[in-house]
Amino acid sequence: MHDIIYEADTPMGKLFDVILLILILVSIVIVMLESIPKLNEKYADTFYLLEWIITGLFTIEYIARIISIKKPTKYIFSFYGIIDLLSVLPLYLSFFIAGSSALLTVRSLRLLRIFRILKVSRYLGAGNYLKKAISDSREKIAVFLFAVLMMCIISGTLMYIIEGEESGFVSIPVGIYWSIVTLTTVGFGDIAPVTPLGQFIAAVIMIMGYGIIAVPTGIVTSEYSKNLNSKENKVILNTIACYNCNAKKHQDDAKFCHNCGEPLRDD
Amino acid sequence: MHDIIYEADTPMGKLFDVILLILILVSIVIVMLESIPKLNEKYADTFYLLEWIITGLFTIEYIARIISIKKPTKYIFSFYGIIDLLSVLPLYLSFFIAGSSALLTVRSLRLLRIFRILKVSRYLGAGNYLKKAISDSREKIAVFLFAVLMMCIISGTLMYIIEGEESGFVSIPVGIYWSIVTLTTVGFGDIAPVTPLGQFIAAVIMIMGYGIIAVPTGIVTSEYSKNLNSKENKVILNTIACYNCNAKKHQDDAKFCHNCGEPLRDD
Amino acid sequence: MHDIIYEADTPMGKLFDVILLILILVSIVIVMLESIPKLNEKYADTFYLLEWIITGLFTIEYIARIISIKKPTKYIFSFYGIIDLLSVLPLYLSFFIAGSSALLTVRSLRLLRIFRILKVSRYLGAGNYLKKAISDSREKIAVFLFAVLMMCIISGTLMYIIEGEESGFVSIPVGIYWSIVTLTTVGFGDIAPVTPLGQFIAAVIMIMGYGIIAVPTGIVTSEYSKNLNSKENKVILNTIACYNCNAKKHQDDAKFCHNCGEPLRDD
Amino acid sequence: MHDIIYEADTPMGKLFDVILLILILVSIVIVMLESIPKLNEKYADTFYLLEWIITGLFTIEYIARIISIKKPTKYIFSFYGIIDLLSVLPLYLSFFIAGSSALLTVRSLRLLRIFRILKVSRYLGAGNYLKKAISDSREKIAVFLFAVLMMCIISGTLMYIIEGEESGFVSIPVGIYWSIVTLTTVGFGDIAPVTPLGQFIAAVIMIMGYGIIAVPTGIVTSEYSKNLNSKENKVILNTIACYNCNAKKHQDDAKFCHNCGEPLRDD
Repeated sequence: MHDIIYEADTPMGKLFDVILLILILVSIVIVMLESIPKLNEKYADTFYLLEWIITGLFTIEYIARIISIKKPTKYIFSFYGIIDLLSVLPLYLSFFIAGSSALLTVRSLRLLRIFRILKVSRYLGAGNYLKKAISDSREKIAVFLFAVLMMCIISGTLMYIIEGEESGFVSIPVGIYWSIVTLTTVGFGDIAPVTPLGQFIAAVIMIMGYGIIAVPTGIVTSEYSKNLNSKENKVILNTIACYNCNAKKHQDDAKFCHNCGEPLRDD
Repeated sequence: MHDIIYEADTPMGKLFDVILLILILVSIVIVMLESIPKLNEKYADTFYLLEWIITGLFTIEYIARIISIKKPTKYIFSFYGIIDLLSVLPLYLSFFIAGSSALLTVRSLRLLRIFRILKVSRYLGAGNYLKKAISDSREKIAVFLFAVLMMCIISGTLMYIIEGEESGFVSIPVGIYWSIVTLTTVGFGDIAPVTPLGQFIAAVIMIMGYGIIAVPTGIVTSEYSKNLNSKENKVILNTIACYNCNAKKHQDDAKFCHNCGEPLRDD
Repeated sequence: MHDIIYEADTPMGKLFDVILLILILVSIVIVMLESIPKLNEKYADTFYLLEWIITGLFTIEYIARIISIKKPTKYIFSFYGIIDLLSVLPLYLSFFIAGSSALLTVRSLRLLRIFRILKVSRYLGAGNYLKKAISDSREKIAVFLFAVLMMCIISGTLMYIIEGEESGFVSIPVGIYWSIVTLTTVGFGDIAPVTPLGQFIAAVIMIMGYGIIAVPTGIVTSEYSKNLNSKENKVILNTIACYNCNAKKHQDDAKFCHNCGEPLRDD
Repeated sequence: MHDIIYEADTPMGKLFDVILLILILVSIVIVMLESIPKLNEKYADTFYLLEWIITGLFTIEYIARIISIKKPTKYIFSFYGIIDLLSVLPLYLSFFIAGSSALLTVRSLRLLRIFRILKVSRYLGAGNYLKKAISDSREKIAVFLFAVLMMCIISGTLMYIIEGEESGFVSIPVGIYWSIVTLTTVGFGDIAPVTPLGQFIAAVIMIMGYGIIAVPTGIVTSEYSKNLNSKENKVILNTIACYNCNAKKHQDDAKFCHNCGEPLRDD
């Protein structure tokens, strides 16, 4: 059972993952459709029924995952373990507590689980390269984003002083929000400068935003290029998971778990 | 006749392609102008007449393409064969069925055919490098876009909960639409957050969108650079097409089609 | 006189260029200020007087440039020669023809001349690298922009069909305009989709626009990197101009013009 | 005392920096909250009291910094010295002069000081690479931004002529502001072209903006890549500061200040 639920190398394991993926997508679509007033009026009962069926299936999956592993706590307190729990809890809670429909959105997190299926060789490779490139430039991007935020605080305050409440800059936080909207080149236009000086500063912010967008791009491109060229980045393509501690990323010919020493059954 | 219609290496073949290109552009311009109410009232008859003339010429071209090839099915069911058919069908259909003017837009696909003319050496080279760079990073960009979509689903649902219907977030799909508009830094402003918490989350989405735009750029740049530097990418610059199966990309000195074995006449 | 006007290596030549730059900037600022109704009411006479003074000085400069060169036609029909003429003509013409104030904007082109001053060593180097990178990837960017335009035509037509006139998509050209606004991530919001299907297609266009912005970046970065690394790109830092044909980019130790054979006086 | 205030290598130095960082952030948050009318009505007294406490602490810090250095003028007229002074001055001035609340925003500059704490090894390294990449491509980006500005002046004037005051293009400076908004792909939508010709030119500007955003990215990426690959870029990770002249960036094993020759005490 462990092989089917936690790994994707066997036909049964793949089938399990595909069924899970479909269930997740159906569940997400229901959440979306429920939020459309017209559809909810008409099909509220159908949605409710489907919701209970899917939650029931996810509950079974959650229990199966706990049973099929030697050390259940390893799974329960892992990232995906918490998400799995959060994806079934809301409905049960909503049964007891009225008006907790907001919790249903936690189900969106369920989408994160579909990344497990992506652990098919090719996608894993691609995903890992990306993750490594982003992780390697994490600090540099943090420094950059911090500098951007600082620029936004200064320019947001300036705009609040110059434009004032008449133009929609009702407070400094709103000014900072506007600066972020502008510097990232989003530009909603719900707030826009009207005074010549405000427009001049806005123009300066925009040109800066246009110029410095090159910085994160330069960082990620360079790090990504480096990774792409280096031979050291070995990518684990199998989905072997330890029966005991659920550790992943074992070598293809590994016989024992690199984390807890438990023998890996590949028979 | 095959050489003139399918290849662009002879003067006649080039002339044929240029005439075809002009016809396509004229046809596109007519479709555009017809959609402007003022012009359509005035020149409806002229547009209608021109439309029939162009459709007639395209019909002749379509028949000529079928006749001049040994295996017509190879052309008919190819990508361009279907586009060629779709570019003449709408008008004939509209003659029988009233109100099918929507089908006229299929003609826009006709524009895709002008890429054939681009198969002049230089442009082919440039286009192929691009295609190869995009095709090589296809999977990585798919993983990236999937991650972006997931972020949009989560943030769209959050905004729906926080902002609610008063701010225009009438349903989760609309929230997701807004998230995509924001994360891609488009920012229409038709829907914009008004609550402080909503604006804070919007700011986080925008800064993330600003930061992660670097990822696809990094991928494409790296792959493109790799292709540019490698000597393996041989680009076929001629436009030789097999008389039998219409296969392309033959070596310059090829004597037989690499697909069906038919001799290639280059005399 | 030729050295002062056409070259920037001598102190007098530099002074001439700086005075010219200031005159151009003053002239641009006047054009701008004139367009502000409030200021124009107040200072119309001052602006008019200044305008005539500057035009007079530019006329002298234009005549001096023609006199100080052996083959005046070389200058008159060069890019800068035409701009120099266009920068003085409008005012003289406006003296004879009333209501030709639109021509005054031609003066904006005068700004292009300030690039001459940029021909100080460092800036020339930087500018030339850029020019070379853009020029090398010209064809590839043309292919890319053509593909983008084709996507905009198709999606603009689709949006016109789906959204219709109620949402502001009054004609196909307007739909294409909207598509360009969206794909380039500008997003004015003057026109925005309101139907669910329209918003879905808009979301697809936006994500595509977000993804493919990587392509021109990839191209320019690769070409620019290649140029930066190669030793072949020799940059001419002097501003020597031939007395006869006004040819530039002479080697530092050149004795004769590489274009017409005229001796270059460097004494 | 010098070690604690100016360096971050000792536990006490780190503690001092962390307390300072918290004080700065609290101070910034108070400025922000004060600007929200609702909160200011309620908690004006609390904000005022906190403001005086923080200003008091910053005053003590400023005096401590002056005392603990041999040549106080080195600190007083340095970038951070002026910021430190500006961060305490506004409140004292506002005590004497009524209505000078605008000066309070100068405190935002205080945020710049938190970069000192970032001088922890890793962040310093990342920040220095970035600074070097931007500084190396400074001239090229200046040339690029200048070209962009020129395009904006020309297109802004064109739009002013074509669209006129009815569409919101009330003057050339406003037209230029709109051009910058459009070219940088911000697109507020407060001003948008309505005439077909205006929309066509807007489309051209947008596509240009979309295409040329690749240029600064290309420059920064290339320069950054070069720096990343070269071994010459040695990064100083310690925070040793001279007791005499406050010079930084000493070698790890330096015994004397490289600027004034003062012995560096590391005991």
